[in-house]
Amino acid sequence: MTAHTWSVPETEVVQSIRDHLDGRAGDPEGPPAVLATVVGVEGNAYRRPGAKMLLGADGEGVGAITAGCLEEDLASVAERIRETGTPEVVTYDLMDDDEDVWGLGVGCNGIIDVLLEPLTETYRPAVDAFETGHDVAVATVLDGGDGPLVRGDRAYYRPDDGTLRTPDGDPASDEWPAGLAGPAGDLAGRGRGDTLVFDTDGTTVEVFVDGVAAPTDLVVFGTGHDVGPVTELAANNDFRVTVVGFRGAVDLAERFPAADRTVTTAPGRLADEVRLDDRTHAVVMTHNFVDDRIVVEALLDAGVAYVGLMGPRERFEEMLEAFADEGRQFSESELAPLYTPVGLDLGGGSPYQIAHSIVAEVLAVSNDRDPGHLKEREGPIHERVDVGDDGGNGGNDGAGDGVDADAPTQ
Amino acid sequence: MTAHTWSVPETEVVQSIRDHLDGRAGDPEGPPAVLATVVGVEGNAYRRPGAKMLLGADGEGVGAITAGCLEEDLASVAERIRETGTPEVVTYDLMDDDEDVWGLGVGCNGIIDVLLEPLTETYRPAVDAFETGHDVAVATVLDGGDGPLVRGDRAYYRPDDGTLRTPDGDPASDEWPAGLAGPAGDLAGRGRGDTLVFDTDGTTVEVFVDGVAAPTDLVVFGTGHDVGPVTELAANNDFRVTVVGFRGAVDLAERFPAADRTVTTAPGRLADEVRLDDRTHAVVMTHNFVDDRIVVEALLDAGVAYVGLMGPRERFEEMLEAFADEGRQFSESELAPLYTPVGLDLGGGSPYQIAHSIVAEVLAVSNDRDPGHLKEREGPIHERVDVGDDGGNGGNDGAGDGVDADAPTQ
Repeated sequence: MTAHTWSVPETEVVQSIRDHLDGRAGDPEGPPAVLATVVGVEGNAYRRPGAKMLLGADGEGVGAITAGCLEEDLASVAERIRETGTPEVVTYDLMDDDEDVWGLGVGCNGIIDVLLEPLTETYRPAVDAFETGHDVAVATVLDGGDGPLVRGDRAYYRPDDGTLRTPDGDPASDEWPAGLAGPAGDLAGRGRGDTLVFDTDGTTVEVFVDGVAAPTDLVVFGTGHDVGPVTELAANNDFRVTVVGFRGAVDLAERFPAADRTVTTAPGRLADEVRLDDRTHAVVMTHNFVDDRIVVEALLDAGVAYVGLMGPRERFEEMLEAFADEGRQFSESELAPLYTPVGLDLGGGSPYQIAHSIVAEVLAVSNDRDPGHLKEREGPIHERVDVGDDGGNGGNDGAGDGVDADAPTQ
Repeated sequence: MTAHTWSVPETEVVQSIRDHLDGRAGDPEGPPAVLATVVGVEGNAYRRPGAKMLLGADGEGVGAITAGCLEEDLASVAERIRETGTPEVVTYDLMDDDEDVWGLGVGCNGIIDVLLEPLTETYRPAVDAFETGHDVAVATVLDGGDGPLVRGDRAYYRPDDGTLRTPDGDPASDEWPAGLAGPAGDLAGRGRGDTLVFDTDGTTVEVFVDGVAAPTDLVVFGTGHDVGPVTELAANNDFRVTVVGFRGAVDLAERFPAADRTVTTAPGRLADEVRLDDRTHAVVMTHNFVDDRIVVEALLDAGVAYVGLMGPRERFEEMLEAFADEGRQFSESELAPLYTPVGLDLGGGSPYQIAHSIVAEVLAVSNDRDPGHLKEREGPIHERVDVGDDGGNGGNDGAGDGVDADAPTQ
């Protein structure tokens, strides 16, 4: 396992799962890959519930679920699962004093529960949702108690239509807890995972609900050299990036390999080529005043979530004057999604530093955060996910990462 | 020229200059590489004065000085400079309406002055300063007027000893303007460039003063997989990164190829192996409570500029209790450089997103910035560098990048 394994974006883990399902990775005739998912965390185990690692039969792993604390041990458990074909929940109690037990010299605190299961077609709807861009919650039974559900049974909740379905797309049976929908919808939208416990019909059912939020779309307008680092950093931060060039811009896919999609079109025909809606985030950096103006108008008209416009404030004031000359006025609320100069105030001046500050801003806005120092944030660092009386163990409770997305904005 | 060319960190441009000077790049017997430096900017030309590009005789370029606006044209000017051996200052007037003149479909606004010169040993002290870690200002004559100085004459100002020296290390002659030292010291410390005009002895001398600030040291403590993306992002953002591992950690250089240096030592022997002073920035992520505690104490005792400590706030409170048990108390001012949880509040939870937020914080602190949105910053976006009566044209005045490091903190 290399450092690279740990730094892969989440989107690459999903892509690897898809490759395995499609028979493009591993040996299609051989034993299945094993999917390991963090389903519970107490203490300093670093990754959140929902963090995933795919363990191929060839020993290759994609993703990581701790900072190297138990990935090697997981490989041997995966071997067993491949033989039995039966999902397991393995609990690791990582004590600070036992730091060298796992042989990597990396101390790891806390208790972590990991679900390991053979990767099968029952996971495909999650991959498809990620691809098509809708949120979904994957409900997986960890413990069926005395009831009919057994470990590994799976259903999908889609908040957009309020349905709970089997992996085949049929309505899920009544055996699934009725109280699942509410917290599942919440977790799906936030892309968080949590283990929920339901007491129904005299038995206790434990379900891990894994919110798979669709990746956020980032559209980058421009084809200059400065577009490269923005595209690369955004893709690594799990944005689905589209680069848009004008006037017959060529070789965009080759020049911006990190982009999921490249489009060459005319400024006036944007809406035909690129989906612009209230989930769209956009960075405008064509370095052409007229192009920028047409794009900004189209984005604001479409009510996108975020427009970062490169250039000094005076340039945008000129742009507003040009709009006014055409009789176009923007209200304060129409201008709210517009950020110019683009980026956080990090003080860097190199192209890479500017790209870093731009992507940091897009991250903060897309996560609805006030991008101050975490140390200055008020309120508790840990906050429980409220799942009513079902007794969820708290989406991020105890996860020791420094960046806790569950706490409130300052 | 590829997107990669544009995204190289500044440190790589310097490394390339060193390689050419040492005969490790290009043809040592052939024509010299040409160094292009932005010496003046008005309007939207994106890079700041001091931005550099090295144009090899083989047509290879490292770095970029605009977003693709005129790099191709520069190559042909460089060809001429190689033949004549004479430095030139070329002015480009890039009008928005003429966006396609440069053949790249990238609109570029404004006027940009570029000094092009054959790369010679006179530039070596700048490279050495970068390497050894002291600030320096490179003073290069753009126009000597009727006096003895001619275009391309060079001297170095070191703010730490207040000397102005020739490239050979001798004291510079009195022909250099006496008023140079003040603004040169200021620009050196901030790593900014500016063209200064001096009226002396009845003639007007124009000097470009290029502040080469030593790269900021970032020491990362830890060897987990999460160290990889932090190291990589920090190096790309021009930090000089040292990774420190404990207890015989091996293969660090191989595992963290982006690090400038890797060290394996014992927590108690830190000070022998790593320079810790008031310029040091450090991220502590060993995931081992005891190691973290020893490192944090050593860093705070050394009075470093920044300590980012990974982990939730409660963990640090535990650490403070452990210190107190040993009779060690920290005052509020001693704790001021400590940031925990580490990172800006960007809301991301993937390892890469966490690394992005950590490096964003280090950037902001090292540049003394309050890391809010640039659009919310009060005060003027553009601010002139005050160089007294010498009439500097303003370090960042008119540079159209979204991230203006000259304006005051909010």
